[in-house]
Amino acid sequence: MKRVAHGLDGVVVATTRLSEVDGERGRLIIGGFPVEELAPHASFEEVLFLLWRDRLPSAGERDGLVAALTEQRALPDPTLWLLHAAARTGVEPMDALRMGVASLTPAADATDPAAQERVALTLVAAFPTVIATYWRSRLGLSVPPLRRDLGHVAHYLWLLTGVEPDPAVVRGLETYCNTVVDHGFNASTFAARVIVSTRSDMCSALVGAIGALKGPLHGGAPGPALDMVFELRERVARSGRSLAEETEEHVRAVVGGGGRIMGFGHRVYRVRDPRADVLGAAALLLAERAAGDAQLFADARVVEASTLKVLRECKPDRRLDTNVEFYTALLLHGIGLPSELFTPTFALARAGGWTAHVLEQIGDNRLIRPAARYVGPRHSHWPNAA
Amino acid sequence: MKRVAHGLDGVVVATTRLSEVDGERGRLIIGGFPVEELAPHASFEEVLFLLWRDRLPSAGERDGLVAALTEQRALPDPTLWLLHAAARTGVEPMDALRMGVASLTPAADATDPAAQERVALTLVAAFPTVIATYWRSRLGLSVPPLRRDLGHVAHYLWLLTGVEPDPAVVRGLETYCNTVVDHGFNASTFAARVIVSTRSDMCSALVGAIGALKGPLHGGAPGPALDMVFELRERVARSGRSLAEETEEHVRAVVGGGGRIMGFGHRVYRVRDPRADVLGAAALLLAERAAGDAQLFADARVVEASTLKVLRECKPDRRLDTNVEFYTALLLHGIGLPSELFTPTFALARAGGWTAHVLEQIGDNRLIRPAARYVGPRHSHWPNAA
Repeated sequence: MKRVAHGLDGVVVATTRLSEVDGERGRLIIGGFPVEELAPHASFEEVLFLLWRDRLPSAGERDGLVAALTEQRALPDPTLWLLHAAARTGVEPMDALRMGVASLTPAADATDPAAQERVALTLVAAFPTVIATYWRSRLGLSVPPLRRDLGHVAHYLWLLTGVEPDPAVVRGLETYCNTVVDHGFNASTFAARVIVSTRSDMCSALVGAIGALKGPLHGGAPGPALDMVFELRERVARSGRSLAEETEEHVRAVVGGGGRIMGFGHRVYRVRDPRADVLGAAALLLAERAAGDAQLFADARVVEASTLKVLRECKPDRRLDTNVEFYTALLLHGIGLPSELFTPTFALARAGGWTAHVLEQIGDNRLIRPAARYVGPRHSHWPNAA
Repeated sequence: MKRVAHGLDGVVVATTRLSEVDGERGRLIIGGFPVEELAPHASFEEVLFLLWRDRLPSAGERDGLVAALTEQRALPDPTLWLLHAAARTGVEPMDALRMGVASLTPAADATDPAAQERVALTLVAAFPTVIATYWRSRLGLSVPPLRRDLGHVAHYLWLLTGVEPDPAVVRGLETYCNTVVDHGFNASTFAARVIVSTRSDMCSALVGAIGALKGPLHGGAPGPALDMVFELRERVARSGRSLAEETEEHVRAVVGGGGRIMGFGHRVYRVRDPRADVLGAAALLLAERAAGDAQLFADARVVEASTLKVLRECKPDRRLDTNVEFYTALLLHGIGLPSELFTPTFALARAGGWTAHVLEQIGDNRLIRPAARYVGPRHSHWPNAA
């Protein structure tokens, strides 16, 4: 009888040119580039082009993609109504994103790669407007006028705030988006590939991926990693003890009770998640510009070090290292995003990877249909049947 | 280097008590019952209970479930607006279904099985109203008033037509729904399980599943199987030759050109799909009530026999047998459904299986995250980096 591959751990389902997650060595390659080489330098549009076309754009191609995205920023009226209603009735941000993207219908001939890339572009372009329309509506504000003179990431900040975005902040958010744009066959990406493997459409695939990213085991937990830092700072204010002492005590209590410390440990990485360093460096760059942020960054480093110390004492057999969530929270907080928008912003970035995976799956498709082992009865008889 | 399990063919990803697809022997077990034992006898609500609770309901439990479903038939206003807008702008039926279900937010504590079953109930109850609201709006009609004196399947027919449903027709559609309610780890069910394996919510899982079912390799092709019969009848009317002759010539031409005959062949079944017989028997029961339908049924049998004869001649090495789509089309046509609603009706039925799989996955969860083999470069250098 065949082995049950629970969770498909280590089962290789496809070849890909998009990214390589080397969990043993703590390395991440995106489109041929080590993440630390790509993320801080590229614009998000350059990364989109790299993933969609398997090479970097020329300057003209890059500008063309930037311009093409600006054309697709407006949303259809029914999507706008739906997002306003979602904001009014207290729908959660990721549910609102799922609704908003699900209400779009950029259909295209699945056999035409150019048409598929236009669909990818339309969907990626919609994410900032969907998120900002919902968020501003929740705050009782209208969305600022759409602009054409800002790149994708800068325009997202413009829509959220209505304030001219600071280039350093844009760079920080762009580095974040590039860092998390793709990450192997994670659950949301895999869901997108399963959906499109039936020759369904890209929009349906992205809606499924948003649903998967929503789960706390995947994209749904960057908020709590930072909440712990804030909570520990409050304890210090009350107790007068050091932040390291408070952290060690807290981590010991949580781990002793069988709980999990958010921001540490990953299903695939056995060593330090390479994204943590890229995001940490970006967070530090931003933090150095304001005293309060610099203090938070320093405190976060203390909490991280103390947590790792206790985790290594309590679980010497497991490698529980800082994961991407910890520095995601610190960076996105430094950028000024509310924690409710951390996961939607993750989705906005990962939409680049999702669309690229859909294009790759379409290009060499086979229906993804695994098997299961049935463990129930086989010969039940209907009570009143003849 | 590990083998790439393209499409996860034969990879066993979990154990399940919901259904067993035995492709070698052409057997399908649903909740312990051979499909031919369950489908023609059970009400859809009894099958829902069986899948959700792993046993048949008592009479009181069955009536309780019927009543509970009737309570959840109304849709929130934003969903109604969205469906009307979708109908007005020519959105396709499966896209409208995805939009409608995606706009619902029946959230619940993922750790509470009773709360999860209530969510399942709310979502399943919404399918008929979503489909009928969109469809009636497309026809320029309003939806008839919701009723509480009809079961789930009968009420779907009521909403679509505004006519008191004929019990024989209800029985036919109920047999269809029971037959296709669950079918192992097909792509849509698997997508739902991948999504909820992140501890996301059931609604997000069902929206992903709808997206997967939409694909022509999965649920999107029951229409064409019947279209072929109609087309061949027209050729007979023009040529005066026999239906068998026309069919043989057509199939030879399609297969000779490398094409595929819709309604024949299946990824898993190597012998006759057991659902074809159950649906064929139900279609015959309905067809016998009207002369025109009886003739169509007889013609479909001729087309089936002639197609199988040619397929076996042309592809002696492959077992291409009649699949579920062929008799689905015949039965749903006999029920009076337009072909545009065949796949949404499939989704309405399969929602029973999807919700049951989500409950099963939640009950023994492990994040579904496979691996991929990276085949791109690893050391690209950013052009302008320091």
